[in-house]
Amino acid sequence: MTIERYAGEPEFKPTSTDVLTAIRERRSIRKYTEEAISEEELNTILHAGLCAPTARNRRPFHFIVIKDRERLTTLAQGKIHARMLSSAACGLVICGDTALEERPEHFYADCFAATQNMLLAIHGLGLGGVWLGVTKDSEWYQLIRETLELPEQIEPAAVIAVGHPAEERPRPQTWEEDRIHYEKW
Amino acid sequence: MTIERYAGEPEFKPTSTDVLTAIRERRSIRKYTEEAISEEELNTILHAGLCAPTARNRRPFHFIVIKDRERLTTLAQGKIHARMLSSAACGLVICGDTALEERPEHFYADCFAATQNMLLAIHGLGLGGVWLGVTKDSEWYQLIRETLELPEQIEPAAVIAVGHPAEERPRPQTWEEDRIHYEKW
Repeated sequence: MTIERYAGEPEFKPTSTDVLTAIRERRSIRKYTEEAISEEELNTILHAGLCAPTARNRRPFHFIVIKDRERLTTLAQGKIHARMLSSAACGLVICGDTALEERPEHFYADCFAATQNMLLAIHGLGLGGVWLGVTKDSEWYQLIRETLELPEQIEPAAVIAVGHPAEERPRPQTWEEDRIHYEKW
Repeated sequence: MTIERYAGEPEFKPTSTDVLTAIRERRSIRKYTEEAISEEELNTILHAGLCAPTARNRRPFHFIVIKDRERLTTLAQGKIHARMLSSAACGLVICGDTALEERPEHFYADCFAATQNMLLAIHGLGLGGVWLGVTKDSEWYQLIRETLELPEQIEPAAVIAVGHPAEERPRPQTWEEDRIHYEKW
Protein backbone atom coordinates (compact mmCIF):
# COMPACT_ATOMS: atom_id res chain seq x y z
CA MET A 1 0.00 0.00 0.00
CA THR A 2 1.47 3.37 -0.97
CA ILE A 3 2.16 5.90 1.74
CA GLU A 4 0.07 8.94 0.96
CA ARG A 5 0.49 12.24 2.68
CA TYR A 6 -2.70 13.90 3.85
CA ALA A 7 -3.04 17.69 3.95
CA GLY A 8 -1.42 19.09 7.10
CA GLU A 9 0.35 15.86 7.97
CA PRO A 10 4.01 16.07 8.92
CA GLU A 11 6.56 14.72 6.47
CA PHE A 12 7.21 11.00 6.72
CA LYS A 13 10.50 9.17 6.34
CA PRO A 14 10.75 5.42 6.97
CA THR A 15 13.65 4.32 9.18
CA SER A 16 16.01 1.40 8.54
CA THR A 17 14.67 -0.51 11.56
CA ASP A 18 12.26 -3.35 10.85
CA VAL A 19 9.18 -3.51 13.07
CA LEU A 20 10.05 -6.86 14.68
CA THR A 21 13.60 -5.75 15.44
CA ALA A 22 12.28 -2.54 17.02
CA ILE A 23 9.88 -4.53 19.22
CA ARG A 24 12.70 -6.88 20.29
CA GLU A 25 15.42 -4.34 20.90
CA ARG A 26 13.54 -1.41 22.43
CA ARG A 27 14.61 -0.90 26.04
CA SER A 28 13.84 1.65 28.73
CA ILE A 29 16.49 4.35 28.31
CA ARG A 30 16.92 6.64 31.30
CA LYS A 31 20.15 8.47 30.49
CA TYR A 32 20.33 11.11 27.79
CA THR A 33 22.85 13.41 26.17
CA GLU A 34 22.15 17.15 26.15
CA GLU A 35 21.21 17.11 22.47
CA ALA A 36 17.72 18.38 21.68
CA ILE A 37 15.26 16.41 19.58
CA SER A 38 14.13 18.01 16.35
CA GLU A 39 10.66 19.25 15.49
CA GLU A 40 10.52 16.56 12.80
CA GLU A 41 11.42 13.77 15.24
CA LEU A 42 8.88 15.05 17.74
CA ASN A 43 6.10 15.16 15.14
CA THR A 44 6.98 11.63 14.01
CA ILE A 45 6.63 10.39 17.60
CA LEU A 46 3.34 12.23 18.10
CA HIS A 47 1.98 10.93 14.82
CA ALA A 48 2.85 7.37 15.89
CA GLY A 49 0.70 7.92 18.99
CA LEU A 50 -2.17 9.24 16.87
CA CYS A 51 -2.02 6.08 14.71
CA ALA A 52 -2.95 3.85 17.67
CA PRO A 53 -6.04 1.67 17.46
CA THR A 54 -8.95 2.96 19.48
CA ALA A 55 -12.08 1.24 20.74
CA ARG A 56 -15.19 2.25 18.77
CA ASN A 57 -13.15 5.06 17.14
CA ARG A 58 -13.55 7.26 20.23
CA ARG A 59 -9.94 8.56 19.99
CA PRO A 60 -9.77 9.91 23.56
CA PHE A 61 -6.00 10.56 23.50
CA HIS A 62 -4.29 13.92 23.96
CA PHE A 63 -0.54 14.45 24.18
CA ILE A 64 1.24 17.21 26.07
CA VAL A 65 4.80 18.00 25.01
CA ILE A 66 7.03 19.49 27.71
CA LYS A 67 10.41 21.01 26.91
CA ASP A 68 10.57 23.76 29.52
CA ARG A 69 13.40 22.79 31.88
CA GLU A 70 11.69 24.16 34.97
CA ARG A 71 8.47 22.30 34.27
CA LEU A 72 10.37 19.06 33.58
CA THR A 73 12.24 19.47 36.86
CA THR A 74 9.01 20.03 38.77
CA LEU A 75 7.63 16.75 37.41
CA ALA A 76 10.96 14.96 37.99
CA GLN A 77 11.03 15.96 41.64
CA GLY A 78 7.56 14.60 42.32
CA LYS A 79 8.44 10.92 41.95
CA ILE A 80 11.67 9.06 42.58
CA HIS A 81 11.34 6.96 39.41
CA ALA A 82 10.76 10.08 37.30
CA ARG A 83 14.10 11.76 38.07
CA MET A 84 15.41 11.31 34.53
CA LEU A 85 12.76 13.78 33.31
CA SER A 86 14.95 16.63 34.54
CA SER A 87 17.66 15.67 32.01
CA ALA A 88 15.35 14.51 29.19
CA ALA A 89 15.12 16.51 25.96
CA CYS A 90 11.41 16.27 26.25
CA GLY A 91 8.57 14.88 28.34
CA LEU A 92 5.43 13.53 26.70
CA VAL A 93 2.31 13.20 28.81
CA ILE A 94 -0.26 10.82 27.38
CA CYS A 95 -3.71 11.87 28.56
CA GLY A 96 -7.22 10.77 27.73
CA ASP A 97 -10.57 12.51 27.67
CA THR A 98 -12.92 10.58 29.95
CA ALA A 99 -15.88 12.33 28.32
CA LEU A 100 -14.97 10.58 25.05
CA GLU A 101 -14.24 7.19 26.67
CA GLU A 102 -15.78 6.56 30.05
CA ARG A 103 -14.88 2.86 30.55
CA PRO A 104 -11.49 2.58 32.26
CA GLU A 105 -10.39 -0.58 30.40
CA HIS A 106 -11.07 0.97 26.97
CA PHE A 107 -9.66 4.34 28.03
CA TYR A 108 -6.43 2.62 29.08
CA ALA A 109 -6.38 0.42 25.95
CA ASP A 110 -6.37 3.51 23.74
CA CYS A 111 -3.89 5.52 25.81
CA PHE A 112 -1.46 2.61 26.27
CA ALA A 113 -1.55 1.48 22.63
CA ALA A 114 -0.61 5.09 21.78
CA THR A 115 2.14 5.05 24.44
CA GLN A 116 3.65 1.84 23.05
CA ASN A 117 3.50 3.18 19.48
CA MET A 118 5.37 6.28 20.63
CA LEU A 119 8.05 4.23 22.43
CA LEU A 120 8.61 2.09 19.33
CA ALA A 121 8.82 5.22 17.14
CA ILE A 122 11.36 6.71 19.57
CA HIS A 123 13.49 3.58 19.30
CA GLY A 124 13.12 3.49 15.51
CA LEU A 125 14.38 7.06 15.29
CA GLY A 126 17.51 6.14 17.24
CA LEU A 127 16.30 8.01 20.32
CA GLY A 128 15.73 6.59 23.79
CA GLY A 129 12.68 6.73 25.99
CA VAL A 130 11.15 5.30 29.12
CA TRP A 131 7.51 4.77 30.10
CA LEU A 132 6.67 6.24 33.49
CA GLY A 133 3.49 4.83 34.95
CA VAL A 134 1.00 7.20 36.52
CA THR A 135 -0.79 5.66 39.47
CA LYS A 136 -4.25 7.15 39.58
CA ASP A 137 -4.85 9.59 42.45
CA SER A 138 -1.21 9.35 43.61
CA GLU A 139 0.68 12.49 44.64
CA TRP A 140 2.48 12.44 41.31
CA TYR A 141 -0.83 12.18 39.47
CA GLN A 142 -2.04 15.27 41.32
CA LEU A 143 1.23 17.10 40.62
CA ILE A 144 0.88 16.33 36.88
CA ARG A 145 -2.72 17.54 36.89
CA GLU A 146 -1.81 20.80 38.60
CA THR A 147 1.42 21.46 36.68
CA LEU A 148 -0.26 20.93 33.31
CA GLU A 149 -3.54 22.57 34.36
CA LEU A 150 -5.56 19.59 33.19
CA PRO A 151 -9.34 20.04 33.01
CA GLU A 152 -11.33 17.68 35.23
CA GLN A 153 -12.32 15.29 32.43
CA ILE A 154 -8.73 14.89 31.20
CA GLU A 155 -6.78 12.08 32.93
CA PRO A 156 -3.02 11.62 32.67
CA ALA A 157 -2.36 7.94 31.85
CA ALA A 158 1.40 7.76 31.21
CA VAL A 159 4.51 9.90 30.84
CA ILE A 160 7.41 9.26 28.46
CA ALA A 161 10.85 10.78 29.02
CA VAL A 162 12.74 11.01 25.73
CA GLY A 163 16.15 12.13 24.52
CA HIS A 164 19.27 11.03 22.71
CA PRO A 165 20.48 7.88 24.48
CA ALA A 166 23.55 8.05 26.72
CA GLU A 167 23.36 4.37 27.66
CA GLU A 168 23.14 1.12 25.72
CA ARG A 169 21.11 -1.79 26.99
CA PRO A 170 21.23 -5.20 25.33
CA ARG A 171 17.95 -7.00 24.97
CA PRO A 172 17.14 -9.48 27.75
CA GLN A 173 15.74 -12.99 27.50
CA THR A 174 11.97 -12.45 27.29
CA TRP A 175 10.77 -15.71 25.77
CA GLU A 176 8.97 -17.58 28.53
CA GLU A 177 7.17 -20.75 27.45
CA ASP A 178 5.15 -20.85 30.68
CA ARG A 179 3.34 -17.64 29.66
CA ILE A 180 1.90 -19.34 26.59
CA HIS A 181 -1.13 -21.60 26.79
CA TYR A 182 -2.94 -23.53 24.10
CA GLU A 183 -6.73 -23.69 23.80
CA LYS A 184 -7.30 -23.04 27.52
CA TRP A 185 -5.45 -22.24 30.71
CA MET B 1 23.19 -3.89 18.65
CA THR B 2 23.48 -7.45 17.36
CA ILE B 3 20.50 -9.73 17.60
CA GLU B 4 21.50 -12.66 19.76
CA ARG B 5 19.44 -15.76 20.13
CA TYR B 6 18.93 -16.99 23.66
CA ALA B 7 18.57 -20.68 24.42
CA GLY B 8 15.04 -21.87 23.73
CA GLU B 9 14.05 -18.72 21.86
CA PRO B 10 12.23 -19.15 18.55
CA GLU B 11 14.12 -18.30 15.39
CA PHE B 12 14.05 -14.64 14.41
CA LYS B 13 13.78 -13.15 10.93
CA PRO B 14 13.43 -9.42 10.41
CA THR B 15 10.71 -8.32 7.99
CA SER B 16 11.02 -5.71 5.25
CA THR B 17 8.58 -3.37 7.01
CA ASP B 18 10.08 -0.43 8.88
CA VAL B 19 8.69 0.25 12.35
CA LEU B 20 7.21 3.66 11.50
CA THR B 21 5.53 2.33 8.36
CA ALA B 22 4.04 -0.55 10.36
CA ILE B 23 2.66 1.86 12.96
CA ARG B 24 1.15 4.08 10.21
CA GLU B 25 -0.31 1.38 8.00
CA ARG B 26 -1.58 -1.18 10.48
CA ARG B 27 -5.37 -1.39 10.32
CA SER B 28 -8.00 -3.54 11.97
CA ILE B 29 -8.47 -6.49 9.61
CA ARG B 30 -11.67 -8.46 10.14
CA LYS B 31 -11.81 -10.64 7.02
CA TYR B 32 -9.48 -13.57 6.52
CA THR B 33 -8.71 -16.25 3.97
CA GLU B 34 -8.85 -19.88 5.04
CA GLU B 35 -5.06 -20.18 5.13
CA ALA B 36 -3.57 -21.21 8.46
CA ILE B 37 -0.78 -19.30 10.13
CA SER B 38 2.47 -21.14 10.66
CA GLU B 39 4.02 -22.14 13.96
CA GLU B 40 6.89 -19.77 13.19
CA GLU B 41 4.56 -16.82 12.58
CA LEU B 42 2.64 -17.59 15.75
CA ASN B 43 5.79 -17.74 17.85
CA THR B 44 6.98 -14.45 16.36
CA ILE B 45 3.70 -12.80 17.38
CA LEU B 46 3.85 -14.29 20.89
CA HIS B 47 7.45 -13.23 21.31
CA ALA B 48 6.52 -9.67 20.32
CA GLY B 49 4.00 -9.69 23.16
CA LEU B 50 6.60 -10.97 25.60
CA CYS B 51 8.93 -8.11 24.62
CA ALA B 52 6.48 -5.48 25.93
CA PRO B 53 7.61 -3.08 28.63
CA THR B 54 6.24 -3.88 32.07
CA ALA B 55 5.92 -1.75 35.18
CA ARG B 56 8.47 -2.72 37.86
CA ASN B 57 9.31 -5.86 35.82
CA ARG B 58 6.24 -7.67 37.15
CA ARG B 59 5.50 -9.28 33.74
CA PRO B 60 1.88 -10.24 34.52
CA PHE B 61 0.99 -11.22 30.95
CA HIS B 62 -0.16 -14.64 29.78
CA PHE B 63 -1.31 -15.47 26.26
CA ILE B 64 -3.80 -18.13 25.28
CA VAL B 65 -3.69 -19.36 21.68
CA ILE B 66 -6.96 -20.73 20.29
CA LYS B 67 -7.13 -22.61 17.01
CA ASP B 68 -9.92 -25.06 17.75
CA ARG B 69 -12.79 -24.08 15.45
CA GLU B 70 -15.49 -24.94 17.96
CA ARG B 71 -13.89 -22.91 20.72
CA LEU B 72 -13.39 -19.94 18.34
CA THR B 73 -17.05 -20.15 17.33
CA THR B 74 -18.17 -20.21 20.97
CA LEU B 75 -16.24 -17.00 21.62
CA ALA B 76 -17.44 -15.45 18.32
CA GLN B 77 -21.06 -16.06 19.21
CA GLY B 78 -20.79 -14.32 22.57
CA LYS B 79 -20.31 -10.80 21.23
CA ILE B 80 -21.53 -9.17 18.05
CA HIS B 81 -18.20 -7.40 17.41
CA ALA B 82 -16.30 -10.68 17.83
CA ARG B 83 -18.01 -12.56 14.98
CA MET B 84 -14.85 -12.60 12.84
CA LEU B 85 -13.25 -14.95 15.39
CA SER B 86 -15.19 -17.83 13.87
CA SER B 87 -13.31 -17.38 10.57
CA ALA B 88 -9.94 -16.36 12.04
CA ALA B 89 -6.94 -18.68 11.73
CA CYS B 90 -6.32 -18.08 15.39
CA GLY B 91 -7.54 -16.22 18.44
CA LEU B 92 -5.09 -14.80 20.96
CA VAL B 93 -6.37 -13.97 24.42
CA ILE B 94 -4.16 -11.54 26.32
CA CYS B 95 -4.56 -12.14 30.04
CA GLY B 96 -2.84 -10.84 33.13
CA ASP B 97 -2.13 -12.28 36.54
CA THR B 98 -3.60 -9.92 39.11
CA ALA B 99 -1.49 -11.59 41.80
CA LEU B 100 1.61 -10.28 39.97
CA GLU B 101 0.17 -6.81 39.28
CA GLU B 102 -2.68 -5.69 41.46
CA ARG B 103 -3.04 -2.04 40.32
CA PRO B 104 -5.48 -1.88 37.39
CA GLU B 105 -3.68 0.95 35.55
CA HIS B 106 -0.34 -0.90 35.59
CA PHE B 107 -1.98 -4.24 34.84
CA TYR B 108 -3.62 -2.70 31.77
CA ALA B 109 -0.41 -0.88 30.76
CA ASP B 110 1.47 -4.18 30.59
CA CYS B 111 -1.31 -6.15 28.88
CA PHE B 112 -2.09 -3.44 26.32
CA ALA B 113 1.55 -2.71 25.45
CA ALA B 114 1.84 -6.45 24.75
CA THR B 115 -1.38 -6.37 22.68
CA GLN B 116 -0.13 -3.47 20.55
CA ASN B 117 3.26 -5.18 20.03
CA MET B 118 1.43 -8.29 18.82
CA LEU B 119 -0.77 -6.30 16.42
CA LEU B 120 2.28 -4.59 14.94
CA ALA B 121 4.08 -7.92 14.59
CA ILE B 122 0.99 -9.36 12.85
CA HIS B 123 1.02 -6.47 10.39
CA GLY B 124 4.78 -6.76 9.87
CA LEU B 125 4.38 -10.44 8.98
CA GLY B 126 1.84 -9.58 6.30
CA LEU B 127 -1.02 -11.00 8.37
CA GLY B 128 -4.11 -9.16 9.56
CA GLY B 129 -5.53 -8.78 13.03
CA VAL B 130 -8.07 -6.90 15.07
CA TRP B 131 -8.11 -5.94 18.74
CA LEU B 132 -11.32 -6.95 20.50
CA GLY B 133 -11.85 -5.09 23.76
CA VAL B 134 -12.97 -7.07 26.79
CA THR B 135 -15.28 -5.06 29.02
CA LYS B 136 -14.67 -6.22 32.56
CA ASP B 137 -17.53 -8.25 34.07
CA SER B 138 -19.50 -8.22 30.79
CA GLU B 139 -21.23 -11.38 29.54
CA TRP B 140 -18.42 -11.86 27.02
CA TYR B 141 -15.82 -11.51 29.78
CA GLN B 142 -17.60 -14.27 31.72
CA LEU B 143 -17.86 -16.44 28.60
CA ILE B 144 -14.10 -16.06 27.99
CA ARG B 145 -13.35 -16.93 31.62
CA GLU B 146 -15.50 -20.07 31.47
CA THR B 147 -14.48 -21.21 27.98
CA LEU B 148 -10.77 -20.89 28.78
CA GLU B 149 -11.13 -22.11 32.39
CA LEU B 150 -9.26 -19.12 33.75
CA PRO B 151 -8.25 -19.26 37.41
CA GLU B 152 -9.72 -16.50 39.56
CA GLN B 153 -6.56 -14.37 39.63
CA ILE B 154 -6.20 -14.40 35.82
CA GLU B 155 -8.08 -11.62 34.04
CA PRO B 156 -8.70 -11.52 30.27
CA ALA B 157 -7.73 -8.03 29.05
CA ALA B 158 -7.98 -8.23 25.25
CA VAL B 159 -8.55 -10.66 22.40
CA ILE B 160 -6.89 -10.54 18.98
CA ALA B 161 -8.38 -12.28 15.94
CA VAL B 162 -5.66 -13.05 13.39
CA GLY B 163 -5.41 -14.57 9.94
CA HIS B 164 -4.30 -13.96 6.39
CA PRO B 165 -6.03 -10.75 5.26
CA ALA B 166 -8.94 -10.95 2.81
CA GLU B 167 -9.48 -7.18 2.82
CA GLU B 168 -7.27 -4.14 2.25
CA ARG B 169 -7.78 -0.96 4.17
CA PRO B 170 -5.89 2.22 3.29
CA ARG B 171 -4.60 4.25 6.18
CA PRO B 172 -6.88 7.08 7.33
CA GLN B 173 -6.01 10.65 8.25
CA THR B 174 -4.95 10.42 11.90
CA TRP B 175 -2.90 13.59 12.36
CA GLU B 176 -4.99 15.90 14.53
CA GLU B 177 -3.25 19.07 15.69
CA ASP B 178 -5.86 19.71 18.36
CA ARG B 179 -4.74 16.58 20.22
CA ILE B 180 -1.28 18.04 20.73
CA HIS B 181 -0.56 20.56 23.45
CA TYR B 182 2.64 22.33 24.38
CA GLU B 183 3.85 22.79 27.97
CA LYS B 184 0.35 22.62 29.43
CA TRP B 185 -3.26 22.00 28.46
